[in-house]
Amino acid sequence: MTAVVTDPAEAGAPLAAEAARFASFGWMRGTSGNLSVVTDRDPLRLAVTASGLDKSELTPADVVFVDGDGAPVDGGNPSAEAALHARVVRLTGAGAVVHVHTVASVAMARRHPQGIVLRDLEMLKGLGLPDHEQEVLLPVIANSQDMGVLGDRLEAAREPRVPAVVVAGHGLYVWGRDPRRARHHTEVVEWLLELELTV
Amino acid sequence: MTAVVTDPAEAGAPLAAEAARFASFGWMRGTSGNLSVVTDRDPLRLAVTASGLDKSELTPADVVFVDGDGAPVDGGNPSAEAALHARVVRLTGAGAVVHVHTVASVAMARRHPQGIVLRDLEMLKGLGLPDHEQEVLLPVIANSQDMGVLGDRLEAAREPRVPAVVVAGHGLYVWGRDPRRARHHTEVVEWLLELELTV
Amino acid sequence: MTAVVTDPAEAGAPLAAEAARFASFGWMRGTSGNLSVVTDRDPLRLAVTASGLDKSELTPADVVFVDGDGAPVDGGNPSAEAALHARVVRLTGAGAVVHVHTVASVAMARRHPQGIVLRDLEMLKGLGLPDHEQEVLLPVIANSQDMGVLGDRLEAAREPRVPAVVVAGHGLYVWGRDPRRARHHTEVVEWLLELELTV
Amino acid sequence: MTAVVTDPAEAGAPLAAEAARFASFGWMRGTSGNLSVVTDRDPLRLAVTASGLDKSELTPADVVFVDGDGAPVDGGNPSAEAALHARVVRLTGAGAVVHVHTVASVAMARRHPQGIVLRDLEMLKGLGLPDHEQEVLLPVIANSQDMGVLGDRLEAAREPRVPAVVVAGHGLYVWGRDPRRARHHTEVVEWLLELELTV
Repeated sequence: MTAVVTDPAEAGAPLAAEAARFASFGWMRGTSGNLSVVTDRDPLRLAVTASGLDKSELTPADVVFVDGDGAPVDGGNPSAEAALHARVVRLTGAGAVVHVHTVASVAMARRHPQGIVLRDLEMLKGLGLPDHEQEVLLPVIANSQDMGVLGDRLEAAREPRVPAVVVAGHGLYVWGRDPRRARHHTEVVEWLLELELTV
Repeated sequence: MTAVVTDPAEAGAPLAAEAARFASFGWMRGTSGNLSVVTDRDPLRLAVTASGLDKSELTPADVVFVDGDGAPVDGGNPSAEAALHARVVRLTGAGAVVHVHTVASVAMARRHPQGIVLRDLEMLKGLGLPDHEQEVLLPVIANSQDMGVLGDRLEAAREPRVPAVVVAGHGLYVWGRDPRRARHHTEVVEWLLELELTV
Repeated sequence: MTAVVTDPAEAGAPLAAEAARFASFGWMRGTSGNLSVVTDRDPLRLAVTASGLDKSELTPADVVFVDGDGAPVDGGNPSAEAALHARVVRLTGAGAVVHVHTVASVAMARRHPQGIVLRDLEMLKGLGLPDHEQEVLLPVIANSQDMGVLGDRLEAAREPRVPAVVVAGHGLYVWGRDPRRARHHTEVVEWLLELELTV
Repeated sequence: MTAVVTDPAEAGAPLAAEAARFASFGWMRGTSGNLSVVTDRDPLRLAVTASGLDKSELTPADVVFVDGDGAPVDGGNPSAEAALHARVVRLTGAGAVVHVHTVASVAMARRHPQGIVLRDLEMLKGLGLPDHEQEVLLPVIANSQDMGVLGDRLEAAREPRVPAVVVAGHGLYVWGRDPRRARHHTEVVEWLLELELTV
């Protein structure tokens, strides 16, 4: 996955716009969730949405810059989850990461704590799977307050063909080459989860 | 909970904005629900949304000021429920109270009239619960047309760690330090109820 | 129910606004449903939304005037259902009638073709029921393409305390003193149906 | 079905508007789905939305022109599905085709792979069925990556009275005389599917 690097000065505006979109879907209730975009690869730098704010009301300034471990580089107080964003980027080469709290993801993880089988669904192409891939496992991992533990679980469980992992009792991590691609992957994963919940 | 006191002249605008937001979620159908914010602590004064109006169409003037018993202080005709808002404030020290009629809260209260257990859910942190709290009871109380009775039930049933109570056959009362915090608590409680209804 | 009479020249704008609102809720899919308001009582005249148009896109001119039998008074081609609007007005004294196609109403009518019992729900007050009324029947009538037959069924089945009837396989008729009151009654009835469908 | 032919220079704007509307309903998540309108009948020409773009963000320029086999006529890179749009037009005489990915259509197709019976529903009139038609089959066909195979299945399965086919594991194809009529048919079919899924 080739990463798109974003000018730090321009990182906040698209993150605020993406957050407002996801909030309008009800996927970032309260102050939940966070989004990130890679601004540099060497050394690794990410812009991450500031924590504790309403995701429907972010401004372009509501962003914190972190390094490859999720530690702040210009001050600021990033969410602990910034470390998981950075790890997803190191692991996958993604350029943007979306973390949202959707009802469907937590409901499906409770029903299928070992992972969610997705089969014979055209929508899988929206995750980049080729036409002939007819079955794939969307991994589910147990939640943890320790980002190192959570990252180890994500690394161990992830399915290389699928740019997403469900965290049980928590929500979704989804990634893509850039914020728009990460948005599309998020929308597709959520659609698939809502379908399987309905059937 | 430290209370934020709001200038009375500026109390109506945020209440109208919050009401329009909740109405857009379908949580204030008809003319249901009401919102309040503390404008003074000594003596206690609250601004409460005027009753009988469409909550998607309130103006900053559509507000009534009440005392610590919910009685009007400058004329006006507050909802009887203003007394319950005032009592929640006295009981909890909250600076803002949200009362909305959501389908999920009434449906879950019918299934669980003794209270709703919430367990192992990251979203609980959005109510201010610490990381290590893994289980909590969202209280459900029986409805009453007598605000004194309803307040006694709320006082007896409330869980100090949870800024919310479900009223069976009726809806949600949720509170927070200020209107935005009360909004976030409301969104989180409703998300949790929608999840448990889905699973 | 005291009727509010609307200036004919000003009847189209509120009907278009109400229709756009209901369409945004998904209650007027395709070109379904129609709204009306009384513009004169003696002789009876109603403004009814024009048929065959997208209810999210009506203009104030998209209105037809009909008499107490639903026949056009200034030309135009009203929906056959205009006759039922007029009959509801004659029967109830309402000043505005809402007819929408909601999924919840048709689903509930299929489950409960003899009528839907609503009990111990605060939201019933939003229909004008006094506090002490704890149970009421929302009537369900069989559908017909003959507006006379449908009107007879509505007249025979209607519950005087409830400003609404569900037509099986079809949708909701709801009324009120004016368009805003009819809107509130519609929102309340739909909320009650969504609740009972969920529980 | 008499076809409305659209000026090619003006084909993109309504397609972008229709796509934004369907995207707002959640029916075009990710970059899924595509819309088309006939711009010429002899030889057959269609404007089809460009593939790989977010359907909530199309501009009037995001359109590709194809011939009766779905091959591009002015360059551009149409979706393979353009061939199915063209075939629907040849088969039905429609002037506009909608292809959306709705959860309800895929869920209902999984429950009813042999087709979905719709009975005694007023909403069927929104598909153009006369009053006395009380039962109809909404066809479901198996999915395929080969547009020729998919088109053969659609041709073999389609019900002439119904301007829609569900593709299992995939989504909806719906058509009409012009984009607005195709929209209304799509809304009606989706409403019917959501109803049957709910009951």
